[in-house]
Amino acid sequence: MIKVGIMGYGNLGRGVECALKQSPDMELSAVFTRRNPEEVKILTEGVSVYSADDAEKHTEEVDVLIICGGSATDLPEQTPKYAALFNVVDSFDTHARIPEHFANVDAAAKAACRTAVISGGWDPGMFSLNRVYAESILPVGETYTFWGKGVSQGHSDAVRRIDGVIDARQYTIPVDEALSAVRSGAAPELSTREKHTRLVYVVAEDDADKARITEEIVTMKNYFDEYDTTVEFIDEETMARDHSGIPHGGFVIRSGRTGWEEENTHVVEYSLQLDSNPEFTSSVLVAIARATYRMAEAGQSGAKTVFDIAPAQLSPKSPEELRKAML
Amino acid sequence: MIKVGIMGYGNLGRGVECALKQSPDMELSAVFTRRNPEEVKILTEGVSVYSADDAEKHTEEVDVLIICGGSATDLPEQTPKYAALFNVVDSFDTHARIPEHFANVDAAAKAACRTAVISGGWDPGMFSLNRVYAESILPVGETYTFWGKGVSQGHSDAVRRIDGVIDARQYTIPVDEALSAVRSGAAPELSTREKHTRLVYVVAEDDADKARITEEIVTMKNYFDEYDTTVEFIDEETMARDHSGIPHGGFVIRSGRTGWEEENTHVVEYSLQLDSNPEFTSSVLVAIARATYRMAEAGQSGAKTVFDIAPAQLSPKSPEELRKAML
Repeated sequence: MIKVGIMGYGNLGRGVECALKQSPDMELSAVFTRRNPEEVKILTEGVSVYSADDAEKHTEEVDVLIICGGSATDLPEQTPKYAALFNVVDSFDTHARIPEHFANVDAAAKAACRTAVISGGWDPGMFSLNRVYAESILPVGETYTFWGKGVSQGHSDAVRRIDGVIDARQYTIPVDEALSAVRSGAAPELSTREKHTRLVYVVAEDDADKARITEEIVTMKNYFDEYDTTVEFIDEETMARDHSGIPHGGFVIRSGRTGWEEENTHVVEYSLQLDSNPEFTSSVLVAIARATYRMAEAGQSGAKTVFDIAPAQLSPKSPEELRKAML
Repeated sequence: MIKVGIMGYGNLGRGVECALKQSPDMELSAVFTRRNPEEVKILTEGVSVYSADDAEKHTEEVDVLIICGGSATDLPEQTPKYAALFNVVDSFDTHARIPEHFANVDAAAKAACRTAVISGGWDPGMFSLNRVYAESILPVGETYTFWGKGVSQGHSDAVRRIDGVIDARQYTIPVDEALSAVRSGAAPELSTREKHTRLVYVVAEDDADKARITEEIVTMKNYFDEYDTTVEFIDEETMARDHSGIPHGGFVIRSGRTGWEEENTHVVEYSLQLDSNPEFTSSVLVAIARATYRMAEAGQSGAKTVFDIAPAQLSPKSPEELRKAML
């Protein structure tokens, strides 16, 4: 059994715990938290919760540590730090800072002869893989990524900071006409506004000026100003009943042309429709943890990404089983 | 530049030639044929066509040989034979015989310190990859593969052998209701008949008994008897005008459940919509040839499949470029 540790027990950490329950060859061996360990109640019986400060005392209990922190401030600090102690996996998703994060983690992991896979999940992660596969096969063409329908935590949080807003939930929605145009193989040029719309549900204070709140939302720089945004005011009961889930998903579509005169068109599409964004992300991280363990056992130290993982490494099945049953 | 040879110059071989034209780091270096080389006209200027019998005289001209024969009789003999001389790629697609073919090719390639990737293409190939990725991420769930809408050469050939039939084209069509049920995450049990229908266009001799031909088609064992099949009689002109292409495609869909009580459902879908089945298959083979060359350079000899290829190996971009632009 591959012994997996979880660093940080929020939605993502709990998702990792659930995914491990479904993995025949892996088990949860320890949970680390920055909170008081006494107050963190996990689902798995018989597994210890330790203070993150004591992590280095427990390196023998963990084959791979899945770091479930946030990309803004946690992971840039945590992943290099723990890559010096454990084989690690993270879901770092600040696209622009990936080269810098990779370099930091690579240096730490190589110095400690550990294996570290960064930026697992679905985007970056499965979507990235599909971009690479499709572009490698069809070098002449265009790739499109659409997100949604799903909840964006960052956008929801931004709306919650507006004066008079009690709660908010923002859905990113791909535009059907844009998806259809891309699927037709026409390789359209699409603006930000043409690809996605935003839908915001707001619970406002009783005496709040709804027109002012709406105006603040739809004009918010970087978040909403480049999109067509719809704002709907609902009551707290409706918010709790209809919008407590964290669904997400999206589409990676490449259309490319082949033939001596590039006369034939092909459309490759990968899509996800997820009831729970954190649980799916966690499930990807657990499969990556399996591959991380195997790469570590094979002496492949340093930082890696999903691009470096042979697909067979992710599966509990043997190469023979995979060829017989899945090829 | 990676020097690529083509063994067998039919639809697939010509597709490889076209795909190489789009590859910045690869070039066609030789074509081998079992026909008279003088009579084989290729598209690329300045490249020699040799007799397949002379292949061993030209091993220095070729880094990777893409073998473009058929799975029934060509590849079981050709791939082990040429794996003793070259690094090779094939598109062996007789699913039930893959373990045997793998073993034969592995023995030949290992003995010669060559690298051989078998069963490239889209099914087996890209569809297989997506089955492995989706099942590794979502171990609890069901995977479905649908094919079409597309031309099945084997079924078209079978109809052409019926007395009174001049020409025929068989389309495999996935059933919309079945696709919708799978996409809903309901994980339905589907019979062969519920998943696909078959549509056959036939050009018959003037005095042929169309009712008898139709009956022979729809009751044909292993080919049509388990499907709802529609037969339409058309004239030769219509056949040539509307049915000269070789489109294909299909869907791999997995729905899986996560959460402590498996309460959340996720649907992962990969689909292809191809104007030209052989050209897309060829494009996959060329990307695999790039990976084959790299694995051979790294000393990884023996037989491999797409499951053993790290995605970055398929791309002409460097690992740094991939992380920066595609992750």
